[in-house]
Amino acid sequence: MNLILLYTSDFISPHLVRLTDRRFHHMRSVHQAQVGEAFKVGVLDGLVGQGKVSALSDDYIELQVQLDQAPPKPLPLHLIMALPRPKMLKRTLETAATLGVKDLWLINSYRVDKSYWSTPILKADKTREHLLLGLEQAGDTRLPRVHLRKRFKPFVEDELPALARNTRALVAHPYDAAPCPDPEASPTTLAIGPEGGFIAYEVEKLQEAGLESIHLGRRILRVETAVPVLLSRLFPL
Amino acid sequence: MNLILLYTSDFISPHLVRLTDRRFHHMRSVHQAQVGEAFKVGVLDGLVGQGKVSALSDDYIELQVQLDQAPPKPLPLHLIMALPRPKMLKRTLETAATLGVKDLWLINSYRVDKSYWSTPILKADKTREHLLLGLEQAGDTRLPRVHLRKRFKPFVEDELPALARNTRALVAHPYDAAPCPDPEASPTTLAIGPEGGFIAYEVEKLQEAGLESIHLGRRILRVETAVPVLLSRLFPL
Repeated sequence: MNLILLYTSDFISPHLVRLTDRRFHHMRSVHQAQVGEAFKVGVLDGLVGQGKVSALSDDYIELQVQLDQAPPKPLPLHLIMALPRPKMLKRTLETAATLGVKDLWLINSYRVDKSYWSTPILKADKTREHLLLGLEQAGDTRLPRVHLRKRFKPFVEDELPALARNTRALVAHPYDAAPCPDPEASPTTLAIGPEGGFIAYEVEKLQEAGLESIHLGRRILRVETAVPVLLSRLFPL
Repeated sequence: MNLILLYTSDFISPHLVRLTDRRFHHMRSVHQAQVGEAFKVGVLDGLVGQGKVSALSDDYIELQVQLDQAPPKPLPLHLIMALPRPKMLKRTLETAATLGVKDLWLINSYRVDKSYWSTPILKADKTREHLLLGLEQAGDTRLPRVHLRKRFKPFVEDELPALARNTRALVAHPYDAAPCPDPEASPTTLAIGPEGGFIAYEVEKLQEAGLESIHLGRRILRVETAVPVLLSRLFPL
């Protein structure tokens, strides 16, 4: 936790929060918080600032907060990913949130195992938990939106063309592909396939929706490595 | 397994290998290999090419191999990392191998928990196993060398200056730091701290050894995210 995320329900007066949950336990046991000590805090979907410990008991911690900074800039990105297997999904949610992704579409694909769609991680509160961990890591406050699309074709035909329009629209697909373009802070749509890649039919449909194939060189990366590699190549710091 | 790694001991004649272990089981159950089918193969620390299934039984698979390509280029990098906790170490070994790291120093640091040094993953055969997985993922054959340095000071004072000399020598440390430099295929030495970062004394010693502090922007990344992000920023594809 490089930032303690606060919710409006934590405020017991305009500048005072009281925490009793995971955050309280973490601050007490991991950070060994002391009265007077200051921590980086941020309000969910709001400003970032400082929280000074004003009271500490066995049951709660209170922080006097001052919020005066904008959170880090979001990536101007629609990230579209074939649903990864559950273990990788967890890490991908956290990494995407840490790196500043704000719009994530998890879509079906031929190589996505049907069972992946019934993982509890896709339940809204579980998904949110992993996204929050990613925000706390990065020091960000803006919660990403996750959109689930269990059918490939309707998504790619009916929604994707509008998302891709007027953006750098790319699909990471190593065959017949252009090299990854240079970093640029411009609106981007990026699709990443499952392990084993999108099948030819899917790549064709993605291209019809306006996406151009790009590759990352000769090495084949796992999805969880491809995400940070692609995002660091496509956007400036 | 995007590449099947072969060892000289697999060869039963100059162009024929017989596999009976994990690779055989993986080819049979995951790839559902058939006689006549071709797979990407490579000899450990050697060439890459094609292996055509010439025989398949309940106990082994035989491949007729043709090796005619160099493996992907290694990164011209000395990567120095504070030893991560075991779970992260596994993934870091795999990711580093996948991304083309060939020289990895795992060093001690104030924030490295002593217990991390006794993880079985640091046993040579276990370390090697994770590195091989990383190579198989990337389609590479050149095994990285892992150097363990359980004492920070002797490493930084006696070894690091020689490693850093005539290289881009950098430490990822977000305070008083320059922005990450542009991609360049030049010899590089890069140090990455533990979760929580190197302490001030350590940063000072690393700077004395010739390393310059660089940062990756405002977001704070986990070590396993920082590695792919830094390597993709520092080197061209």
